[in-house]
Amino acid sequence: MAHIALPEGLPGIRGPMAFRPDTSKPLNELVEVLLLKPNTLTPGERELIATYVSSQNDCFYCQTIHGAVAAHHLGGDEDLVIKVKQDFEHAHVSEKLKALLVIAGKVQKGGKNVTSEDVERAREQGATDLEIHDTVLIAAAFCMYNRYVDGLATWAPQDPDFYRQRAAKVATEGYVAVNKELNGHSRDTAASRA
Amino acid sequence: MAHIALPEGLPGIRGPMAFRPDTSKPLNELVEVLLLKPNTLTPGERELIATYVSSQNDCFYCQTIHGAVAAHHLGGDEDLVIKVKQDFEHAHVSEKLKALLVIAGKVQKGGKNVTSEDVERAREQGATDLEIHDTVLIAAAFCMYNRYVDGLATWAPQDPDFYRQRAAKVATEGYVAVNKELNGHSRDTAASRA
Repeated sequence: MAHIALPEGLPGIRGPMAFRPDTSKPLNELVEVLLLKPNTLTPGERELIATYVSSQNDCFYCQTIHGAVAAHHLGGDEDLVIKVKQDFEHAHVSEKLKALLVIAGKVQKGGKNVTSEDVERAREQGATDLEIHDTVLIAAAFCMYNRYVDGLATWAPQDPDFYRQRAAKVATEGYVAVNKELNGHSRDTAASRA
Repeated sequence: MAHIALPEGLPGIRGPMAFRPDTSKPLNELVEVLLLKPNTLTPGERELIATYVSSQNDCFYCQTIHGAVAAHHLGGDEDLVIKVKQDFEHAHVSEKLKALLVIAGKVQKGGKNVTSEDVERAREQGATDLEIHDTVLIAAAFCMYNRYVDGLATWAPQDPDFYRQRAAKVATEGYVAVNKELNGHSRDTAASRA
């Protein structure tokens, strides 16, 4: 059971987002820019970074939904998502993405762990300053989203098909659009709290 | 030196924020709602939570600027800020804030560390669901801001007066307003990158 009274029936981050629309607005806008808006890193690559960080933080909901979104963008390749979580240095991804995943993993443990050598490796593989910036911020942001989801003890469905279906919707419509539906929930909650 | 080429002369998070306006917008909106907008927790209490988490993450810039903003809201009581960072259970703050700081400290280490007992203690001291929610999200968000600042190896002034002056401005005008000035920097940067 969640630590606070959240609107019922909404898994993972969607419960707290419906509970608090004023914070869910910037939270959705941030993830949309970082993972979905046009970028030299593909949505699939960025979702893999988010999934990897979420798995390092042991957040079941986030690593499962973002893993499903990543797989959706990558033509349904769920094995690749599992391989990236377990051993990305030997996964079938670009050398640039491997170097960025190293940086993301360092950020997950704490920002000061990132070294000039880590950044140099990414640059040698063609990473731009913007890509390095976005990798650091994606990793940092998922250290927030993961803690938000688990710190409130939200519930998460176990059925992989739930995540696959949601992922298809998110990948097509975007995070801001799919979470607009939460506004109705929040009004109900506000009314019931009044 | 920062890991990427950031606009010069902007300390801490302001360099990356000027570098990437599309992400700085939701980042500023989020911190404004969490720390400054009307809430049953005072701005001083919320800034203390942000400062404590930033000190646990060993982020010099964030703990110093938010410590200065906290002190500003608390009538200039810098000793209280230091005491909260070092040993909040014996600081001159409310029992409710102590219980919320326990939750924030657990979130800093990872969301799953928060227990029902931690939440019960906060409730017994009068904390509402919204206050518990906001404490978890403030702590989670500063695990992001701290990693963003340190993961890019931004620079931070050492002079305490710099932070005091900036804190007075932030506390009066708000995070969104004071960071609007960064738009000029970002345009310069975009131009110099083009």
